[in-house]
Amino acid sequence: MTENLKWQITSNSLEASQLLVDETLFHVANGYIGIRGNFEEGYPNQYNTIRGTYINGVYDISEVKHGEKLQGFIDNKQKIINITDVQGIELYIAGERFSLFDGEILEFKRTLDMREGISKRHIIWKSPKGHIVEINIQRMASFIKPELFVIDYAVKSINYAGEIVFVSTQKGEVSNYFDPTDPRVAGEYEKHLTVEKLDSVDGIDIITSITNKSNIRVSSAVKHVVSAEHELERIQDDQSLTSKIKLNIKDGETQRLIKYCIFTDSIRFSDCHQAAVDKMKEVLEISIDNLYELQASYLSSFWAKADVVINGDDGLQQGIHFNLFELLQSVGKDKYSNIAAKGLSGEGYEGHYFWDTEIYMLPFFLLTDKALAENLLNYRHEKLDAARENARILGHKKGALYPWRTISGSECSAYFPSGTAQYHINADIAYMFVQYYFVTGDLDFVENKAAEVLFETARLWMDTGHYVGDSFRIDAVTGPDEYTCVVNNNYYTNCMAKYNLKWAAKFYELLKDNNRLDSLADRLEVTEEEVREWQEASEKMYLPYDEKLDINPQDDSFLSKAVWDFENTPKDHYPLLLHYHPLYIYRYQVCKQADTVLAHFLLEDEQKLSTIKNSYEYYEKITTHDSSLSTCIFSIVASKLGDIKKAYDYFMQTTRLDLDNVHHNTKDGIHTANMGGTYMGMVYGFAGLRIKEQGIFFNPIIPEQWESYEFKICYQERTIKVHISKNQCNFTLLEGKELKINVYGKEYLLNNDLMINF
Amino acid sequence: MTENLKWQITSNSLEASQLLVDETLFHVANGYIGIRGNFEEGYPNQYNTIRGTYINGVYDISEVKHGEKLQGFIDNKQKIINITDVQGIELYIAGERFSLFDGEILEFKRTLDMREGISKRHIIWKSPKGHIVEINIQRMASFIKPELFVIDYAVKSINYAGEIVFVSTQKGEVSNYFDPTDPRVAGEYEKHLTVEKLDSVDGIDIITSITNKSNIRVSSAVKHVVSAEHELERIQDDQSLTSKIKLNIKDGETQRLIKYCIFTDSIRFSDCHQAAVDKMKEVLEISIDNLYELQASYLSSFWAKADVVINGDDGLQQGIHFNLFELLQSVGKDKYSNIAAKGLSGEGYEGHYFWDTEIYMLPFFLLTDKALAENLLNYRHEKLDAARENARILGHKKGALYPWRTISGSECSAYFPSGTAQYHINADIAYMFVQYYFVTGDLDFVENKAAEVLFETARLWMDTGHYVGDSFRIDAVTGPDEYTCVVNNNYYTNCMAKYNLKWAAKFYELLKDNNRLDSLADRLEVTEEEVREWQEASEKMYLPYDEKLDINPQDDSFLSKAVWDFENTPKDHYPLLLHYHPLYIYRYQVCKQADTVLAHFLLEDEQKLSTIKNSYEYYEKITTHDSSLSTCIFSIVASKLGDIKKAYDYFMQTTRLDLDNVHHNTKDGIHTANMGGTYMGMVYGFAGLRIKEQGIFFNPIIPEQWESYEFKICYQERTIKVHISKNQCNFTLLEGKELKINVYGKEYLLNNDLMINF
Repeated sequence: MTENLKWQITSNSLEASQLLVDETLFHVANGYIGIRGNFEEGYPNQYNTIRGTYINGVYDISEVKHGEKLQGFIDNKQKIINITDVQGIELYIAGERFSLFDGEILEFKRTLDMREGISKRHIIWKSPKGHIVEINIQRMASFIKPELFVIDYAVKSINYAGEIVFVSTQKGEVSNYFDPTDPRVAGEYEKHLTVEKLDSVDGIDIITSITNKSNIRVSSAVKHVVSAEHELERIQDDQSLTSKIKLNIKDGETQRLIKYCIFTDSIRFSDCHQAAVDKMKEVLEISIDNLYELQASYLSSFWAKADVVINGDDGLQQGIHFNLFELLQSVGKDKYSNIAAKGLSGEGYEGHYFWDTEIYMLPFFLLTDKALAENLLNYRHEKLDAARENARILGHKKGALYPWRTISGSECSAYFPSGTAQYHINADIAYMFVQYYFVTGDLDFVENKAAEVLFETARLWMDTGHYVGDSFRIDAVTGPDEYTCVVNNNYYTNCMAKYNLKWAAKFYELLKDNNRLDSLADRLEVTEEEVREWQEASEKMYLPYDEKLDINPQDDSFLSKAVWDFENTPKDHYPLLLHYHPLYIYRYQVCKQADTVLAHFLLEDEQKLSTIKNSYEYYEKITTHDSSLSTCIFSIVASKLGDIKKAYDYFMQTTRLDLDNVHHNTKDGIHTANMGGTYMGMVYGFAGLRIKEQGIFFNPIIPEQWESYEFKICYQERTIKVHISKNQCNFTLLEGKELKINVYGKEYLLNNDLMINF
Repeated sequence: MTENLKWQITSNSLEASQLLVDETLFHVANGYIGIRGNFEEGYPNQYNTIRGTYINGVYDISEVKHGEKLQGFIDNKQKIINITDVQGIELYIAGERFSLFDGEILEFKRTLDMREGISKRHIIWKSPKGHIVEINIQRMASFIKPELFVIDYAVKSINYAGEIVFVSTQKGEVSNYFDPTDPRVAGEYEKHLTVEKLDSVDGIDIITSITNKSNIRVSSAVKHVVSAEHELERIQDDQSLTSKIKLNIKDGETQRLIKYCIFTDSIRFSDCHQAAVDKMKEVLEISIDNLYELQASYLSSFWAKADVVINGDDGLQQGIHFNLFELLQSVGKDKYSNIAAKGLSGEGYEGHYFWDTEIYMLPFFLLTDKALAENLLNYRHEKLDAARENARILGHKKGALYPWRTISGSECSAYFPSGTAQYHINADIAYMFVQYYFVTGDLDFVENKAAEVLFETARLWMDTGHYVGDSFRIDAVTGPDEYTCVVNNNYYTNCMAKYNLKWAAKFYELLKDNNRLDSLADRLEVTEEEVREWQEASEKMYLPYDEKLDINPQDDSFLSKAVWDFENTPKDHYPLLLHYHPLYIYRYQVCKQADTVLAHFLLEDEQKLSTIKNSYEYYEKITTHDSSLSTCIFSIVASKLGDIKKAYDYFMQTTRLDLDNVHHNTKDGIHTANMGGTYMGMVYGFAGLRIKEQGIFFNPIIPEQWESYEFKICYQERTIKVHISKNQCNFTLLEGKELKINVYGKEYLLNNDLMINF
């Protein structure tokens, strides 16, 4: 693999099922807009396609039906919508329509270049009549101009002279993808968007539509720039705008159509129709080459901060680049948006934001781009009122309960046992607010955002739990493992809630000590007595422990259940959730994903090492990893336990999950949490990073397959480069003041370079 | 209260909400058809009404939507349908339309007579113009001719001479009632019935319709018989047939319209259209007076067998009569039907059959009318294949799992935690098959029906449970109490499953000893080894017991939860299920209904008396009785424990539950299980009857409010009269050979009269 290939994803498949996967893998996005990698000219009719364009945070509302609707069940939910389709460009060579399923394909290759930030198609096509053309199509979702999507379509004639025609469309009639057989995507057809206005201003074609229930407007604007004299015919119907562009090409000549597309929405712009025109005009003032340069330069800065380099394993390196690049493509960069479970690459999980953001993805941004991390946390603070409202729906008199899945802040989970009941999301969010404080030391943020979130989530735990004798217990919640639902004293939940309560009290003291407490305490009516109760509940939190096995049982009743009969479960019966009634699954010791093991990573100081090791081994035997959030955690804990082989194996399964379509559903979108998990597997796993109140800790190991690996992290206004080779770790302070770091349990002062042999 | 009033329910309310309740209370039914007590002439437009006519076992299929559809969730469900409306009769006096909401009501009273089997309205009406008429309307659903419903409409002129007009309608355009806010009735409007054919044969008007999805036909036929010369105009439109009948009336004269209505369906009749005509012709050969006599005579036999007499408490006596009468009106009398939770009086619970039949209602029929009891059990045997199929859906490789709610045999529960997860229904059904065997000694029935049901249900328990060390445990099921769902080792379930397994093995031995085993054992492939496993699992069944409290915990985790905060729960927040999210409810020790306490009644020999007493007292404090299946059980166990006052109080709450609309939803139909519970409260409660393998047991007590009470039971080809007075119980053998009975723990030989003082 050449250096280049580590930075590129390629494919030349025209196989129907792989095309669906490639639509995901070759999508372009920038955190605001995302466009799936559909062919401009489409596929043959019998091919399935998920043709989609999405705006982060733009949703419609769907009614939710329940077979039996009990009190508090949601009546409707938000879902991401597929917006105006600007992808269509048909090409005609002497009247013959270009298609990869017609004529002869002399060359075909698609490439996602992760340094350029561009997705490309290269084709040499021989038409049925024998005309040969080379086609190069580039697509970019600009990181600099987030509203901009460009299709740069170049046709070079090899043996043809004459007329070529581009038919470029902008279609307002769109609908979402649905699959009634899969609970992980939408179950039924519903139209979400209605065209309100078609318009043309200064050669810019604009379509503005409105969502049917949420009343959000989205506008798209298209401007065609053609490389030569041409004839333009503009065709408008009720819902679409088409430009027919005729021009001549000579033998050996290249003609080029640049289709500039702008997307805006009424959440961000008071008049998104006008904004689309304005943004287009801004963009047109920059040359296309300059736009490409700006993109490359943005990515160059990104990689400079964020790259994780592995020497000795190119396939893995490619996978890591892909995962980090996708995280960047997916992350919302304003307060209206977050990171959807599928980023902006598909409609799986309906574009919802989950705990995945905090526990799996935020660490990457926290260590490489503080501003993006802060934005993600701001989003949660912004949604605190909705979380308070959600707590009331769930019967709680005090506190806030973050919804299990949402876009705009209200609960969108329609099956509460493995949705709303996952109260741990409260503690997950709180945990990341605390991590943010450890990494930034930002007291303003604690005063203005973090403390309020921690106080309100702490209150929820107080209203949920109760004392039995001297121990504080939490009943009837679901932990991360969705194959066991609504249980008492889930270890993960109790452990995380303990931390949540402790840090609510600590933030209270911290603000008090800094004379920053009063206005917040007044507003929230927090009393010293209440804080004392948080502290006490935290100290007395019950954490299930089985003395005989020296493990933490997943919950009170977990160990008394029968172990799932793995031996007699056919391979094609995984994931179990698609083959067994949930009630059947609930009856057994079987885990969809890391649960207790995840707690052992996030809060490793709660248990002695033997317990962590025994737990890891116990749960490993009964975990199916049917969730994509699982293997990365097992990899991290295997690293912690020094089992390098296991750590490596799990890491391999994690890193190429989408590239190799391991879960068979990459067509519905990338698995962003797993991508964050890849980063964590490197940094928290192999390098053993932990960020605690006491400081920063490393415990590096290196798999035998690698020569070395390297990454940088930002920590308390410093940049530290970490380089691990076969028998040595090197820490370099690239920026900032000296600091103490802990490596292999020993404290060192890092002021320039630090080399430790192992 | 006169003797008559003990046999009558009356009302003179015209208040909107009471009218809805009275539609239920004054409905007429015969186990095949049921017609709600709607006014022939209707109410004013602004009044709500649930206008309904139902056939037992006739259903349509409704699609079931799930917010999130997991594996095995039902796609559709059956629901009882409202069929052709034949209730309409308008009366015009000199052109003025009779209405109880117009003119002046000089007298108004409605009566349900439970010896005549007739529902009546008596009115003296002064029209706005001053014409006075007396109107007497009688309605009957014939027990002799189950397809027949009659409206007998008599008008007597007090001060009017001239024309009167009846406008009698038969409407094919009907729909079901729905209330999106109440999970206990249907959530959305759906049309279920389409008119196929309107017809008139020999003056009989027939409408045949077909259900939209289940393809069941229903026919209604109407024949008008008028007391005098009249002019008839017949009006037909697409979906309805109207007869306009004009005749003259004189001062003091009575004119009478008898509207004979026949209902048939294609489940029972291959050509139900023709059958409706044929049945009508049969009926018309019998005079109306004779039909009334036959009805009264049928009821006279019924009461002779079934009456429970209380001396000294007329209100209670009326309530008991009502409840027993309603059970008779509700019980299906062929293999296509059973007893719906609301009988044939309304659409609550969508006409489904539940465990209510076996545990609450079958005892009444078993002890008073063996044939009806057998029919109910045959229905379950008939549905065994559907139950096997249901077990497969739930992941089980062996056995049968009866659906929680159904009409035609497949699961109709759309919220599995408090539906399908109630596996105890299997053991409930098995329990009643065993009780039937105890009462009848019918070996043929064991061979042909009971054993197969017990074997298949036993197999399900084996496939559900597992051993932990030496104890057999059952995880992830829900007990009767729906405020605690999907738990491990629900005491009730384990206890009943233990009995189920034990009796599966016993039936096996019984048939083997009688050389009746071979064909069944071959067909089901039952082996001696398998039977040994049933026996062993039964013997080793784990029954949770708390030594400190000397109670049986409801399940493994129940006692570790916090007790519900009853003190701070406003009265109007009951039933809790309408005011709290289920997840909130699941978090607390709070019971909707008897659960462990029910097990202590059904299987009293499993625990020592102190445990039963302590359990009763423990659960009493935390039971809301939000289910109508609860107070009767507490009454029975209070009787057993000798707490006569409590037994009486709970019994009072039970007996008049519908008459006094205690649960505020009698409008949706009667609570048939509670009605069966009333019978059980008397016979199993106060009289302390138990029927066991060892024989028949009594432990009579009498509340101080009563002088005496009396009932008869049929037991092993004998009829025994039981009369309990203040200090004495009398047992009389009315029919059959002498037998041993056990009273207050002592055995007696009953050969004629037996008097025991206490």
